[in-house]
Amino acid sequence: MAASAPASDPRFGPDRRVTLGQPLKLDGGASLDGVEIAYETYGTLNADGSNAIMLCHATTGDQYVASRHPITGKPGWWARTVGPGKPIDTDRYLVICANVLGSCMGTTGPASLAPDGAPYGLRFPVITIRDMVRAHIALLDHLGIERLHAVIGGSMGGMQALSLAAHWPERVARVMVIAATAAMPAQNIAFQEVGRQAIMADPDWQGGAYYNTGRAPDAGLAVARMAAHITYLSEESMHAKFGRRLQDRAAKTFGFDADFEVESYLRHQGATFTGRFDANAYLYITKAMSYFDLAEDHGGRLADMFAGSKARFCLVSFDSDWLYPTPESRKIAHALNAAGAPVSFVELSAPFGHDSFLLDVPELDRVIAGFVG
Amino acid sequence: MAASAPASDPRFGPDRRVTLGQPLKLDGGASLDGVEIAYETYGTLNADGSNAIMLCHATTGDQYVASRHPITGKPGWWARTVGPGKPIDTDRYLVICANVLGSCMGTTGPASLAPDGAPYGLRFPVITIRDMVRAHIALLDHLGIERLHAVIGGSMGGMQALSLAAHWPERVARVMVIAATAAMPAQNIAFQEVGRQAIMADPDWQGGAYYNTGRAPDAGLAVARMAAHITYLSEESMHAKFGRRLQDRAAKTFGFDADFEVESYLRHQGATFTGRFDANAYLYITKAMSYFDLAEDHGGRLADMFAGSKARFCLVSFDSDWLYPTPESRKIAHALNAAGAPVSFVELSAPFGHDSFLLDVPELDRVIAGFVG
Repeated sequence: MAASAPASDPRFGPDRRVTLGQPLKLDGGASLDGVEIAYETYGTLNADGSNAIMLCHATTGDQYVASRHPITGKPGWWARTVGPGKPIDTDRYLVICANVLGSCMGTTGPASLAPDGAPYGLRFPVITIRDMVRAHIALLDHLGIERLHAVIGGSMGGMQALSLAAHWPERVARVMVIAATAAMPAQNIAFQEVGRQAIMADPDWQGGAYYNTGRAPDAGLAVARMAAHITYLSEESMHAKFGRRLQDRAAKTFGFDADFEVESYLRHQGATFTGRFDANAYLYITKAMSYFDLAEDHGGRLADMFAGSKARFCLVSFDSDWLYPTPESRKIAHALNAAGAPVSFVELSAPFGHDSFLLDVPELDRVIAGFVG
Repeated sequence: MAASAPASDPRFGPDRRVTLGQPLKLDGGASLDGVEIAYETYGTLNADGSNAIMLCHATTGDQYVASRHPITGKPGWWARTVGPGKPIDTDRYLVICANVLGSCMGTTGPASLAPDGAPYGLRFPVITIRDMVRAHIALLDHLGIERLHAVIGGSMGGMQALSLAAHWPERVARVMVIAATAAMPAQNIAFQEVGRQAIMADPDWQGGAYYNTGRAPDAGLAVARMAAHITYLSEESMHAKFGRRLQDRAAKTFGFDADFEVESYLRHQGATFTGRFDANAYLYITKAMSYFDLAEDHGGRLADMFAGSKARFCLVSFDSDWLYPTPESRKIAHALNAAGAPVSFVELSAPFGHDSFLLDVPELDRVIAGFVG
């Protein structure tokens, strides 16, 4: 057992919480007191504290990487990748994953209580991806981890990994960015805006002050999820999975039921999502993504963002991902090359679209295991 | 002036209506009495009635092809293509365009009055693309046109053109299908379902019985339009048109206003659409599109659908159209080849995505003019 983290150390293990002793200063100018961070760790920190890997979750993900989700009862979102003997081997590494700032699985967000005892709602400050990473850095300080062996993330998790590497270069040795971008493209901003508008159009949203009213904008949130879900899949995978097959019926109904399997599947995705996610959190997190433009404060010169980095980078894209397509990763690779940073970049062939990073893609396992070392 | 259509013939001209004397029998088994069809004609029918071209409009289009829209005041949707001396030359051809069955610009649809004097609402029968074409054929009968020189349509208009060619092969000599498909792909069904769910999630929809209540599901319809609008554009065109530019401001607001031009543009698209379109009509028309599978009744063998056709076909796709991409047109071309039908097929390079068929693409003008002859 590592000296720095005895088995009894209450900072490590499943379902942990920490309340920050210092206010969290945010990009928007506001400052948050008493931020709580909900996180999990797997594995054991070694004696010199050099084997920690931080995983950053995607938009609607959470800290339950490799343990059963407390609401849905489903396995963790990366259980296939993280565990003893797996590509991210918890026999060798301490794995950390924190629910992001602004979310709803225990970390402070719009559903949390403000200092006045009532939920923040829209009084919660609009945050950025860097603000999420600020909370991650505070967590690392709490855990006594000076430098991560690696930070790894897919989609919005990849943006956090990039932000950490750019703004806290001394805190990480390896950076893996999967199916992400350094600046949210216009089309993705558009899709995210549709989702936000769907939520805000729901009268039960009530300007964000729906907590304790017995109503919530579930209908709007379900529509937002449905629209987003389409963008996570590839046309090919939808065709293969559903095609034009009818749902449990021999013929079209000539009504507005879900005739097709794909309609029924989408409705199910929307309906189940509302049981585990807060609509305001969805607004804040997608807004942070829409705002994401890593090089913005450096005159748009992405290479400059990595000037201070000594980390090794690994970028992965998927050929069927039309939400964060390969050119987005290539731009980052070019910037890292220009900055003289060691970088490997691979486009993997996988049929599942953007969701490929969460699904059975053995080649991704090999790339991760190889890069983690 | 043609003998068959004197200048005074009230069947021809702008803003015409006809009420069908026969019930319209529908694919779903229902039958509609007293169907009204709103249409426009441009140009003059020649002596032997051989110079008529029917244009079929897209999802939310209408009969105002080349005349000012009565609600928006904007030029007709294909004013750049249809008129004296234009690619579809109204000095030489009689051009006909009818508002489709189920729509809301004068042709019978869910907002129309049922025989009991109250609006149909959801009592309106679910229709198909072929039902829309049935109404077109009834209009041709009314106009005394036995055989069209050509039928031309883009997007949902292309599906009508295909349906007309397949089911009424004796009624048309030339068939032009632009940016369409012979069977709605799963991804498009999914996007259409999101739009329908957005409308039906709006409490003001009231199960479709919102007419005369002083409320309408404008918020849901706007979200549906926003989601659909993204699919009409290409990622490249959105990037070129908006990128990450902010809307009339120097910095992000750190609020939920529309910070970005693309957000503002989408909100505008949604908001203006509700002023000219009926939400129930949107439900019915998108359902008809989702149902569209031309070969379904022939065991899926598309080639069989064109066995009785003597028409010439022209298929056009656009390289930036990801909603009805080139492979959809290629499938139709292969089927027509297998059926021994004369067919030309061209993929045009244009940056505007699916909407390219409505925009300034000179090469499309040349293809149309050449095919119309």
